[in-house]
Amino acid sequence: MSLLVVGSIALDSVQTPFGAEKDILGGSATHFAFSASSFCKVRLVGLIGKDFPDEYRKLIAEKDIDTAGLQEVDGNTFKWDGRYQGKMGEAETLDVQLNVLQDFEPEVPDSFLDSEYVFLANYSPERQMAVLDKMKNPKFVIADTMNLWIDIAKDGLLQLLKKIDGLILNDGESSLLTGETNTIRAGRLIQEMGPKYVIIKKGEHGSILFSPDDIFLLPAYPTEEVKDPTGAGDSFAGGVMGYIAKNGGANQESLRKALMSGTIMASFNIEGFGVNRIKETTADEIESRLKSFEKLITP
Amino acid sequence: MSLLVVGSIALDSVQTPFGAEKDILGGSATHFAFSASSFCKVRLVGLIGKDFPDEYRKLIAEKDIDTAGLQEVDGNTFKWDGRYQGKMGEAETLDVQLNVLQDFEPEVPDSFLDSEYVFLANYSPERQMAVLDKMKNPKFVIADTMNLWIDIAKDGLLQLLKKIDGLILNDGESSLLTGETNTIRAGRLIQEMGPKYVIIKKGEHGSILFSPDDIFLLPAYPTEEVKDPTGAGDSFAGGVMGYIAKNGGANQESLRKALMSGTIMASFNIEGFGVNRIKETTADEIESRLKSFEKLITP
Repeated sequence: MSLLVVGSIALDSVQTPFGAEKDILGGSATHFAFSASSFCKVRLVGLIGKDFPDEYRKLIAEKDIDTAGLQEVDGNTFKWDGRYQGKMGEAETLDVQLNVLQDFEPEVPDSFLDSEYVFLANYSPERQMAVLDKMKNPKFVIADTMNLWIDIAKDGLLQLLKKIDGLILNDGESSLLTGETNTIRAGRLIQEMGPKYVIIKKGEHGSILFSPDDIFLLPAYPTEEVKDPTGAGDSFAGGVMGYIAKNGGANQESLRKALMSGTIMASFNIEGFGVNRIKETTADEIESRLKSFEKLITP
Repeated sequence: MSLLVVGSIALDSVQTPFGAEKDILGGSATHFAFSASSFCKVRLVGLIGKDFPDEYRKLIAEKDIDTAGLQEVDGNTFKWDGRYQGKMGEAETLDVQLNVLQDFEPEVPDSFLDSEYVFLANYSPERQMAVLDKMKNPKFVIADTMNLWIDIAKDGLLQLLKKIDGLILNDGESSLLTGETNTIRAGRLIQEMGPKYVIIKKGEHGSILFSPDDIFLLPAYPTEEVKDPTGAGDSFAGGVMGYIAKNGGANQESLRKALMSGTIMASFNIEGFGVNRIKETTADEIESRLKSFEKLITP
């Protein structure tokens, strides 16, 4: 199997009630890749600048990640500066410097164009579509999105929705996209816009999978030590797609297991700043946490 | 088995995006009793005023509810006037008239003092304790509470917690009681205050059961037609206690099934204003919804 992710690579500065870190390795594609690489080799496509630290290149190289699509261009790496307070449910963005993301577009290397499984991390729908158009014969494509694109690029997003197998978004975004505050109705409305599968993330409250004839309700893993929620959604997506790629494809049964896998990977991610915790996660740890999670949710 | 509830009986005026109703039958004990009476006979204790409509007496009498503890006293029935907006997650109280609740205390009839299962609906901890002290030999006692009592009667509440088997409260209340924003840690801290079991309700996000060596995470039933959330928590408690009373006692296994039962009863409750929907719920409907719910949550 072959799993591709296209998205951002960032230097994050993060403040939470449990500490503060400056210019740590982050970005949607990074968090996705660190998570999914616990299941299979991941093809990573993203832009970095001249300032990207060598030690972060090494961190990435230590995982099962193909870095042929890690493209260094003139300028500085994308920077995000954010803060979490209280229950840490939502990030407050303090500063964003697009840097190389403003001036360049990431190129998918020819050797990646045959990827079977594709994750289009949060990006403009136009760029997501441009990547998708290049792919030769993808088997299963999931995209992420955010409020910004629903606000300023809804037409492009609606076109993208007709081309992908699944959309992953949070409950606030699902309401914004559909105008529907009831999450169950919102998920069904998004399915009518195109994607066969819709996964709505609810942070500490879990996630919901909408399949053609089925809904699956999954709580979050009961994490007591949340240090930094940054990248939880992308680690979740990484666990979902990693599981699907490793286990030979998506259907409503395998996606239930994939959602559990995503939940567990997100739970590791938030136990440390940036990729500190998830980079050390072992297969045994994942298996063990999956088993205990299953006990916590089985009636 | 014998199941007792002591709590409020109210005339509610409710506005939601789906309509408005004036002076409909409500109150914590009412919603609990209508829910639990689908499982076993319920002994209802609560105060009503001279203005309590005969048709509401008839409504109550149509269910499997023993009304020997329905006490009419001088004055008007407790009135609550509230509104839900948007996602209807929280009620906005527009007016409260305590009326008979201010001047009288409900008496538990002698014939109810041998009740095995007891639900102390939301009331002042002092009054909850007074009721509990009178009971002869209760097997399993659960209490509800609210922010108000945590704010103004915390000492009394802490004393009560040492005497009961379970506390049921929502996630905001669990944070207020413990000073802990992480719901999992909050639940464990409340267990340390006394009750063997803690059930934290999260509205549309489900509930969490804390047992001595176990946690059970349960999503909410995916209701698409929420007309009036009033009484959802008490219907939930009614389904929990009704299941426990009918099935011979509480342990961490039976409580998992009881939580599912509570979830289903709450889902019926919110599909209509007041008790309109839940009063018509049949055993077949409950069984059928429980089965489909189990499919939606089983990994």
